[in-house]
Amino acid sequence: MSELPPLQVDEDELALLTDLYQLTMTQAYWKEAMDGVATFSLFFRRLPSERRFMLACGQQHAAARLSRLHFGDTALSRLADTGLFEAGFLDWLANWRFEGDIWTLPEGTPVFANEPLMEVEAPIAQAQLLESLAMNLVQLETVLASKAVRIVMAARGRPVVDFGMRRMHGTDAAVRGVRAYRAAGLSGTSNVLGGLRHDLALNGTMAHSYVLAHDSEREAFLAFARHYPGTTLLVDTHDTLEGVQKVIELLREEPALAVKAIRLDSGDLGELARGSRRLLDDAGHDEVQIVASSGLDETQIEALLEAGAPIDAFGVGTQMGVSADAPVIDLSYKLVAYAGEPRVKHSPGKINLPCPKQVYRRRDDQGRYLGDVIALRDEPIAAGEPLLCPLVKAGRLIEAEMARADEARERVADALSRFPADVRRFAPGKSDYPITLSPGLERLQSRT
Amino acid sequence: MSELPPLQVDEDELALLTDLYQLTMTQAYWKEAMDGVATFSLFFRRLPSERRFMLACGQQHAAARLSRLHFGDTALSRLADTGLFEAGFLDWLANWRFEGDIWTLPEGTPVFANEPLMEVEAPIAQAQLLESLAMNLVQLETVLASKAVRIVMAARGRPVVDFGMRRMHGTDAAVRGVRAYRAAGLSGTSNVLGGLRHDLALNGTMAHSYVLAHDSEREAFLAFARHYPGTTLLVDTHDTLEGVQKVIELLREEPALAVKAIRLDSGDLGELARGSRRLLDDAGHDEVQIVASSGLDETQIEALLEAGAPIDAFGVGTQMGVSADAPVIDLSYKLVAYAGEPRVKHSPGKINLPCPKQVYRRRDDQGRYLGDVIALRDEPIAAGEPLLCPLVKAGRLIEAEMARADEARERVADALSRFPADVRRFAPGKSDYPITLSPGLERLQSRT
Repeated sequence: MSELPPLQVDEDELALLTDLYQLTMTQAYWKEAMDGVATFSLFFRRLPSERRFMLACGQQHAAARLSRLHFGDTALSRLADTGLFEAGFLDWLANWRFEGDIWTLPEGTPVFANEPLMEVEAPIAQAQLLESLAMNLVQLETVLASKAVRIVMAARGRPVVDFGMRRMHGTDAAVRGVRAYRAAGLSGTSNVLGGLRHDLALNGTMAHSYVLAHDSEREAFLAFARHYPGTTLLVDTHDTLEGVQKVIELLREEPALAVKAIRLDSGDLGELARGSRRLLDDAGHDEVQIVASSGLDETQIEALLEAGAPIDAFGVGTQMGVSADAPVIDLSYKLVAYAGEPRVKHSPGKINLPCPKQVYRRRDDQGRYLGDVIALRDEPIAAGEPLLCPLVKAGRLIEAEMARADEARERVADALSRFPADVRRFAPGKSDYPITLSPGLERLQSRT
Repeated sequence: MSELPPLQVDEDELALLTDLYQLTMTQAYWKEAMDGVATFSLFFRRLPSERRFMLACGQQHAAARLSRLHFGDTALSRLADTGLFEAGFLDWLANWRFEGDIWTLPEGTPVFANEPLMEVEAPIAQAQLLESLAMNLVQLETVLASKAVRIVMAARGRPVVDFGMRRMHGTDAAVRGVRAYRAAGLSGTSNVLGGLRHDLALNGTMAHSYVLAHDSEREAFLAFARHYPGTTLLVDTHDTLEGVQKVIELLREEPALAVKAIRLDSGDLGELARGSRRLLDDAGHDEVQIVASSGLDETQIEALLEAGAPIDAFGVGTQMGVSADAPVIDLSYKLVAYAGEPRVKHSPGKINLPCPKQVYRRRDDQGRYLGDVIALRDEPIAAGEPLLCPLVKAGRLIEAEMARADEARERVADALSRFPADVRRFAPGKSDYPITLSPGLERLQSRT
């Protein structure tokens, strides 16, 4: 059998998942003996117009992994093969370790434009090499969590289950996406490996193919419900309401059967949910729930529930799985200080905030959020909770600072309840939630 | 150090990257002793409105991998832990292998709605278990190749380099994306692991941070050009045209320096390219090329070149890396036959084509494509080239049928030249390229 290129990225090769210039610039720093301490800030310049906040997710996971990054033998020999690197540099790279500090927002923190999700402080040849991988890792979870939390909000307490694995961008997105979904508040996932690895309940129903492979819908329902007491039956393979009737007949003829729910996967979901509910209730089966799926996103779920559709749970895949309306954020990892001096790129019309920073989230007496202040890290600020915490110090991960998965989930729910309603709306556009610069940062920014 | 969940999906766990219902349905088939041969068809129902064709990519790669899928000990013990599966079924799963046939389009084939990219034919408990992973694998490469080929077309023969790794959806998307980019005709990638693994040239320039970390732009340019003769210098950190002037001064003062190109990464790229070109040419440096990047996509590249911008190469990242305007296709893996009988789901307003199929692409005397005919696989069709080929027979990969990477790339370039111009346009909307059903399929479809 011929060798297929592997699907996985092993720990030993992970340091090669970077842009070439990170390695060539690092070699240049090495040759120039440039080892001043650099601070890089990971942030996005603007929210996508379809988002009023992003849910910062993956940055602690990324920081923990980056603090262990190293160049294994395979990686080094592949670099040697490129002919771009000197033997002395490759030797140096063999001993390369990250020995700096990484500050992060706790996972599940709602975040706005120009607020750092992460700040990395280390000799420049260490901090520079983290850039591309840090961005790739944080981008995925933040984009997916930010979409998923909107869907959770739209469902108003009803369970939302991830059905998206098949249409996500590759295997890592599918698996690590479940980590983001858990933080965002999803109830379960159909993705077996994702759910097992990131501890989210596994859920599954049945597919049209199962119904079609049987000689009749009734036969398929009966077989599946016998195998899986308390299962969910997919009723829209032929005609949805006739499918519901068949479930009801089965439950009459086979009183021992237990069916937890029916699933609607096509057609006018609101109308079909009402029709199905009526049929089930009239037959005395108010215990049988209705699950809806079929290309749903937050606006459709909101519209269904606004119109009173009797839907008990949602299965969501395609739109959530790639965050279809905003699949990317303009994440940057920018040098903001070097050797004790502020450094910023000149960008007409863009804000570039120099120096290490801190973000303060201010509350009123009732705990409601009033606004954020982006400040210099060492600037004395009277009010507000500082959001960025040191997670890696001198290259060592501070385990106690890593948010547990449940903690991220709880933080999201708690934080969302404290923002003005305007921040939680789905419509495109900016919220009025105020983000201001501290006096010290304002002064420094106008100077640089 | 605490255990971080791994980033990679090892071969032994790959079979768990599936939707739970695939496993519960398979257990049901096993219990019901249902082992009729099923045919599943992998296709999309409609093109995204932003695409006039998709470039089928990843389906041979996926088929090769799926033909070796198995449940390793780790996978089986994790399944056992869920409590959802019987010991007898898990024993059966330990010996589970795919022993059927897989037909695929060659990689790099332009494909339209309802045309199968892949057909899988096997006892239902084998074919069913491939669904979710097949879709995930094919989705990624097809979506990315379909975006990238538009960018390649827009660049009209100028090199296009992938700069997108940092903003793609996770590690697998970043690495396997390069495979799709190679087929689509990109010239290089900044992604080290992706380029090494999928044999695409590595390219890199320099970042703003390198310039900012030095005391002056001049010092940074000089150091980098000395380290890397023939490099590309990034000139927009402070003021683009002043940056170009500094490159020119350097080349005058240090005649031994060789600079291949300058890179523009912000501002009005057309105007700055013209200004830079003029400065370089006036100084006698017509050998120094101009590379442009900065959130580019096919429409911006087309507009720049239409306006005569003297740009020699493009670096493209964010928009291409997630196929931002069409990040997902509505890929389906549908049962179309079971135990020798056509099977199709009833979907009002949707086309569901029963039975194993073949796609014929018809040409005129000059080799130009006239239209496609979707037919029954065994139907005698007079004209056109049959596109689907058997790649896996009785579970064995036919190595000779696997397209080499270069072959996919050549196929794309050749095929695109044969389509009417209408298919190659970027504007949203459908092309007039005719896709018809064969008489046999038409007859069968109206009957089922």
